[in-house]
Amino acid sequence: MEACHLAVVGATGLVGQEVLRILEERGFPVGTLTLLASDRSAGSRVEFLSRSTVVRELSKEAFDEVDTAIFAAGAEASHDYARQAAQAGALVLDCSSAFRLHPHVPLCVPEINPEVLQRHHGIIAIPHGMTTQLALALAPLHAEATLARVVVSTYQAASGRGRHAVREFDQQLRDLLNFRPVEAEIFPHQLAFNCLPQGGAFVDNGHCEEEMALMDETRKLLAAPDLPVSATVVYVPLAHSHSASVYIETERTLSVPQVRDLLEQAPGVEVEDDCREQEYPLAIHANGRDEVFVGRIRADLSIPNGLHLWVVADNLRKGAALNAVQIAEHLAS
Amino acid sequence: MEACHLAVVGATGLVGQEVLRILEERGFPVGTLTLLASDRSAGSRVEFLSRSTVVRELSKEAFDEVDTAIFAAGAEASHDYARQAAQAGALVLDCSSAFRLHPHVPLCVPEINPEVLQRHHGIIAIPHGMTTQLALALAPLHAEATLARVVVSTYQAASGRGRHAVREFDQQLRDLLNFRPVEAEIFPHQLAFNCLPQGGAFVDNGHCEEEMALMDETRKLLAAPDLPVSATVVYVPLAHSHSASVYIETERTLSVPQVRDLLEQAPGVEVEDDCREQEYPLAIHANGRDEVFVGRIRADLSIPNGLHLWVVADNLRKGAALNAVQIAEHLAS
Repeated sequence: MEACHLAVVGATGLVGQEVLRILEERGFPVGTLTLLASDRSAGSRVEFLSRSTVVRELSKEAFDEVDTAIFAAGAEASHDYARQAAQAGALVLDCSSAFRLHPHVPLCVPEINPEVLQRHHGIIAIPHGMTTQLALALAPLHAEATLARVVVSTYQAASGRGRHAVREFDQQLRDLLNFRPVEAEIFPHQLAFNCLPQGGAFVDNGHCEEEMALMDETRKLLAAPDLPVSATVVYVPLAHSHSASVYIETERTLSVPQVRDLLEQAPGVEVEDDCREQEYPLAIHANGRDEVFVGRIRADLSIPNGLHLWVVADNLRKGAALNAVQIAEHLAS
Repeated sequence: MEACHLAVVGATGLVGQEVLRILEERGFPVGTLTLLASDRSAGSRVEFLSRSTVVRELSKEAFDEVDTAIFAAGAEASHDYARQAAQAGALVLDCSSAFRLHPHVPLCVPEINPEVLQRHHGIIAIPHGMTTQLALALAPLHAEATLARVVVSTYQAASGRGRHAVREFDQQLRDLLNFRPVEAEIFPHQLAFNCLPQGGAFVDNGHCEEEMALMDETRKLLAAPDLPVSATVVYVPLAHSHSASVYIETERTLSVPQVRDLLEQAPGVEVEDDCREQEYPLAIHANGRDEVFVGRIRADLSIPNGLHLWVVADNLRKGAALNAVQIAEHLAS
């Protein structure tokens, strides 16, 4: 790969920081690095390959001569600047929700649908972290036996809502341990020692934004526009890695060993599934790992062709930053 | 009600302590109180109505002249002593799993199936806490529209595995905050900042004991032996109150307002469901409460007659102790 001029928008955020870590780990050929952030964070310094770089304020002019811009600063920043970055000639890899469901913007997980990368108009969308891990587990089963239905309940980590959310969760724990009143601003209610069945604002049909995203993005990623997907999004009191309880039905019968084989062969997926040893995917083990872990694979006891899975992944890595860097690598190769 | 001779087996455990608290709160007419526990806890003193009572060691002779014995010491103690207590003339209300699925033992939640109380042979089983709250939310919908399918994923609290489990979870939190290694003996893995998709040992079909119990007990409670119920049991890092993400399909169509009406009229159930105000049931609000809280009521967007619910309750109160005391009240009235 040729060394490129890379910009990271939201360089001080959780996903932005993870992008920089992954670029380093994978030896991504960064020639020039431009770090951008909102005015609040502009001026701070960020380390990359042992060099300290000043974070500049996000502006329309910031993308001149940028080859690839990874947007990791939330939907508002992407709405405001991604098109201009693309018009300035940069390839935009957008980790936010801004363009994920736009009909002319590819939504890509390279292990699932690399072909959509050929049809972009300057912007490529990275799915929500929960979608990515769900779709990576589902794609090989869909290819083999055609999914007929998906019902998913999630167990999401605070970091899915950004670094302020992690800080708030951390503060809640400290306040509770010190008998101080608990405050919630980022989350709608106390997350510590609680379960919050809400991700984002509610829409008119009683679902919340993250539930709508998980259903719609999964259908788009799997190119299955009519697939019945049902989602309940729940935040649980931990900082890193999303877990999900997934129920599926397939049109053609898959045995549990077949499911295990298909998932073991699937790129980016690792099967951890040995009940006798009490082995299954765990959030604490997924932290910092690239793979999506699948276990608790079992046949439903009352519905023909019904199957259950437990799917866990680091929401900041494969769920966001790693997926973006993999797309950059794919297009540069 | 006439004052009775009541025995509490497992008087020093989480459920036993909750039983005593609820007897006090409700002014249950206790004439004589016999407190029993395993040899480890025998000899300790427990407060009831401002009197301190010595806990005696569980033995076959302990049930002479006892009218009602609430067993809250786990399946082993119930297997070993419940039949003898019944033979000695006590009515046994068993909070353990020992007899729940026995064909000749009634499994009862008084709001759902009080009629089974007329058919007991000295032992009445209290369902698992998760079953009770699920069944209380489902029963009115089943009565009105006949359930065709249930898929449930749980978010269970450490106290569901007893007081040693709560202590272990608490110790894990302290150890993590003090940079000490974490130990897990009661739980199969670290629960703090983690999700554990396991409740009890695994059986041959890939499900764990609590999943089997939740499916089988729900069918027994609802008198729906062929109802397809699918369960994934997950322990989440909090101490009190179980939550559940519940997907159902009904044979006859129910609108969301109809579901809300049915649940609002159901005894023991409270609807908390206002998306605009971000109001839904929360574990931290259910703690210490008697009701089963239901919210996030919404129609599935792709399956006809599909509905989603979020169901939360204090697993020690309605999930165990309160249900036992309510049965005692029902039979005494």
